[in-house]
Amino acid sequence: MREITADNLPDLARGAAVLGTGGGGDPFVGRLLAEQALKRHGPVTLLGVDEIDDDAVVIPTAFMGAPTVMLEKLPSGDEILGALRALEDLLGKRATHTVSIEAGGLNSMSPFVAAAEAGVPLIDADGMGRAFPELQMLLPTLGGISASPMALADERGNSVALRTDGNAWAERLARAATVEMGCSAAVSLYALTGRQAKDHLVPGTLTLCERVGRAIREAREGHDDPVAAAATTLGGRLVFTGKVADVRRTTTGGFARGTARLAGLAQDSGSTLELSFQNENLVATHDGNVVVSVPDLICVLDTDSGEPVTTETLRYGLRVSVLGVPCDPRWRTPEGLALAGPGYFGYDHTYEPLPAAEV
Amino acid sequence: MREITADNLPDLARGAAVLGTGGGGDPFVGRLLAEQALKRHGPVTLLGVDEIDDDAVVIPTAFMGAPTVMLEKLPSGDEILGALRALEDLLGKRATHTVSIEAGGLNSMSPFVAAAEAGVPLIDADGMGRAFPELQMLLPTLGGISASPMALADERGNSVALRTDGNAWAERLARAATVEMGCSAAVSLYALTGRQAKDHLVPGTLTLCERVGRAIREAREGHDDPVAAAATTLGGRLVFTGKVADVRRTTTGGFARGTARLAGLAQDSGSTLELSFQNENLVATHDGNVVVSVPDLICVLDTDSGEPVTTETLRYGLRVSVLGVPCDPRWRTPEGLALAGPGYFGYDHTYEPLPAAEV
Repeated sequence: MREITADNLPDLARGAAVLGTGGGGDPFVGRLLAEQALKRHGPVTLLGVDEIDDDAVVIPTAFMGAPTVMLEKLPSGDEILGALRALEDLLGKRATHTVSIEAGGLNSMSPFVAAAEAGVPLIDADGMGRAFPELQMLLPTLGGISASPMALADERGNSVALRTDGNAWAERLARAATVEMGCSAAVSLYALTGRQAKDHLVPGTLTLCERVGRAIREAREGHDDPVAAAATTLGGRLVFTGKVADVRRTTTGGFARGTARLAGLAQDSGSTLELSFQNENLVATHDGNVVVSVPDLICVLDTDSGEPVTTETLRYGLRVSVLGVPCDPRWRTPEGLALAGPGYFGYDHTYEPLPAAEV
Repeated sequence: MREITADNLPDLARGAAVLGTGGGGDPFVGRLLAEQALKRHGPVTLLGVDEIDDDAVVIPTAFMGAPTVMLEKLPSGDEILGALRALEDLLGKRATHTVSIEAGGLNSMSPFVAAAEAGVPLIDADGMGRAFPELQMLLPTLGGISASPMALADERGNSVALRTDGNAWAERLARAATVEMGCSAAVSLYALTGRQAKDHLVPGTLTLCERVGRAIREAREGHDDPVAAAATTLGGRLVFTGKVADVRRTTTGGFARGTARLAGLAQDSGSTLELSFQNENLVATHDGNVVVSVPDLICVLDTDSGEPVTTETLRYGLRVSVLGVPCDPRWRTPEGLALAGPGYFGYDHTYEPLPAAEV
């Protein structure tokens, strides 16, 4: 058990955006929302997943939508508690704990808002160990947990409650509502018992985010290589260093989709890495060969500062380093790959697990 | 108070499809659904709006979507009770009565399914005296009644509950959900007290539907003119007789939209009537001049049989007669025209009220 204050947030938000693998929302926006909530309501208690009772009522929240839009239509923060309360009403019970669904600059921070405003502890875990674009792509889905009942809320006071026949239908109906709400909405879904949280979440995600964020900052302050520091902390490896030569991006169907082409620098001079993304980076192709693919993580960092670069902020001329990081092993099972492997996203390559980095 | 049995349904469904003004769903599908429910549960009690208590709990139901789709993806009938029960749960109370939201071959019949299955009386009224394509286009909206809370249900068991900031948002979010549900869904919305039903509904709509349907049948059986019989019963007038020369129709945004061109016959020989529609007929233009326009009713009947022709069944070669029928006077107020007049639908003509027919 720890108390998290506003002082802990910058490292946490930075590391969360690295684990967000291009998606999960903007860390600056996320940090401001969480700082505001912590200043108003005081510190948030962070509990390890083993510190909660099996019959705890764990209600997660997140923002859903296109991150390109969330950079312009900023969340107010009130939507998050609105979504949490709406799901509590559907369930007929109050949350005893809250948790993050995915890692990301916004989606690891907004649970602090929920925890602070609802006055409940936050669990140090998440539902996937990274960010994914669609809401059924959670380890609890693999464990047979229903996303539904589910609530969405927007900044105007509109709310939508869903009870769906499976988690793919939850994604479909919630995405349509999110698009109408202006391509971003707060959601609350995947209510879990404490036992289910222990069985199906990734433990320690927020602590890992904080360690990654701190390693980047300390390396930068000590004039060390922040990219190498992030790679070491994550157990990942550098796959490319280059300069953004081209970005194609459209906001369609409630997602930011596109590709970015990086021209190699230093040891990668003369070669090209192409990133394709749907909110999150999905596939990295080096001179025509897939080198990292979903469900493994593709993390893009500013080469000089080590700051994470989300897909919506990729822009021409930026010098970036690309890390590949092995995903949670549950994503590498046949069921995991069916849910969030390359085939689901329409790619025809076979997934090759990224080897663990040598220590 | 009357008991409605399956024997009453054919006239009712026929007349309802005339008042549906091209929309409101297919009368054959509607009649089959209602017949099945009445055979299973017995007759439905029809009450005049003045026969209910001021504190009655009146919960309407309807089908929402593109009628082009509903002809192929037939409703099962179970969705209607699903939507009603879902709204009851949101309200925390049970319906004492149900009512139709709009006139139409399907939407005047499905309330019989709701009444039979829920075991409550049906009120002889509707929310607009015709059919309109968007769900905020109800006289209760003019009276300040909220469409929300609102429930949608589909045949798979998915359900969506909405609480919205105004009735236009209810339309927007419900339409998006309906599109995802395959362009048709059962909805329950505009819960009313008995007092509100008396103040804001159009009384006697189902009785009028039955009279129109009976007049058409009896004229046909007596070798009289069924089109003239319908016009007299409705207080409308014949505006064109012709043959369908061309239909352009697309199913977009959850609606069937298009235009039909009719080539004149008999006294209209050599002239052309163009109908434009969004589920319902919106504007009739005779040789370039608007002759009937929303909110007045444009009813297309088969010239020989007098059977109503919905916009999704308009087809090349059909010989049809077009009636103009004055709308409920509340639609002719500035507020009514703002909600469902030509300007709302993007037309730039000024609405000219269709004169009442001479008796």
